[in-house]
Amino acid sequence: MFKLLEEAPDGTQRTLDETLAALRYNADGLIPAIAQQAATKEVLMMAWMNEASIRETLATGQVCYWSRSRQTYWRKGESSGHVQKLVEMRTDCDGDTLLLLVNQTGPACHTNRNNCFYNAMDASGLTVSST
Amino acid sequence: MFKLLEEAPDGTQRTLDETLAALRYNADGLIPAIAQQAATKEVLMMAWMNEASIRETLATGQVCYWSRSRQTYWRKGESSGHVQKLVEMRTDCDGDTLLLLVNQTGPACHTNRNNCFYNAMDASGLTVSST
Repeated sequence: MFKLLEEAPDGTQRTLDETLAALRYNADGLIPAIAQQAATKEVLMMAWMNEASIRETLATGQVCYWSRSRQTYWRKGESSGHVQKLVEMRTDCDGDTLLLLVNQTGPACHTNRNNCFYNAMDASGLTVSST
Repeated sequence: MFKLLEEAPDGTQRTLDETLAALRYNADGLIPAIAQQAATKEVLMMAWMNEASIRETLATGQVCYWSRSRQTYWRKGESSGHVQKLVEMRTDCDGDTLLLLVNQTGPACHTNRNNCFYNAMDASGLTVSST
């Protein structure tokens, strides 16, 4: 397997098959994917993908995760209508995390908040915030 | 264990001990932490923390991860000087991911790029970009 990322100079290109084979999935075949609102850079959520959900997302332009709790594909917004349209997919220096720049329709979080990170933590503890 | 997050109304508070006990670590006792530049909202990197590294980060204000490859604490920037000063720590609706708003000194990535997500992916494959 080629070294995907660390030592490749700028402009290096790989096929999708090569790329997907070189990503570093966990023992369950999953890789974490951070979803970020493209226009505002707000971090919306973090979920998981497998190789097939990455292919589906790239082929359709609609973000599709793998649900660990339900053990099935999770086409984001399929039931809620709160879809994520992919603007750009990126992976990191060691190929074990994805960053998805998206256009999110409606709230990203199932609590109907705009994003999932509404719990602030500090040395004294946690406060649930409204946003 | 209390339900940390999903059903707690805005303004709910928990102690740090309660919060750390309720976070959903993986089988290795780790939780993914997304680092985001506070001022620009640029997503810098994703790494892992355990309970002790969360405590250390909150107590010192300097971000400390757990290195899976080296199996040791990783005080970001300890050797490179490229430290991350914590501005705010957040956790998500189901308590299995952290978001760190930081002030990053120097490049976040060990390749000396500003962030780790410099590999663009699309349906045709991957391109290594300069940023």
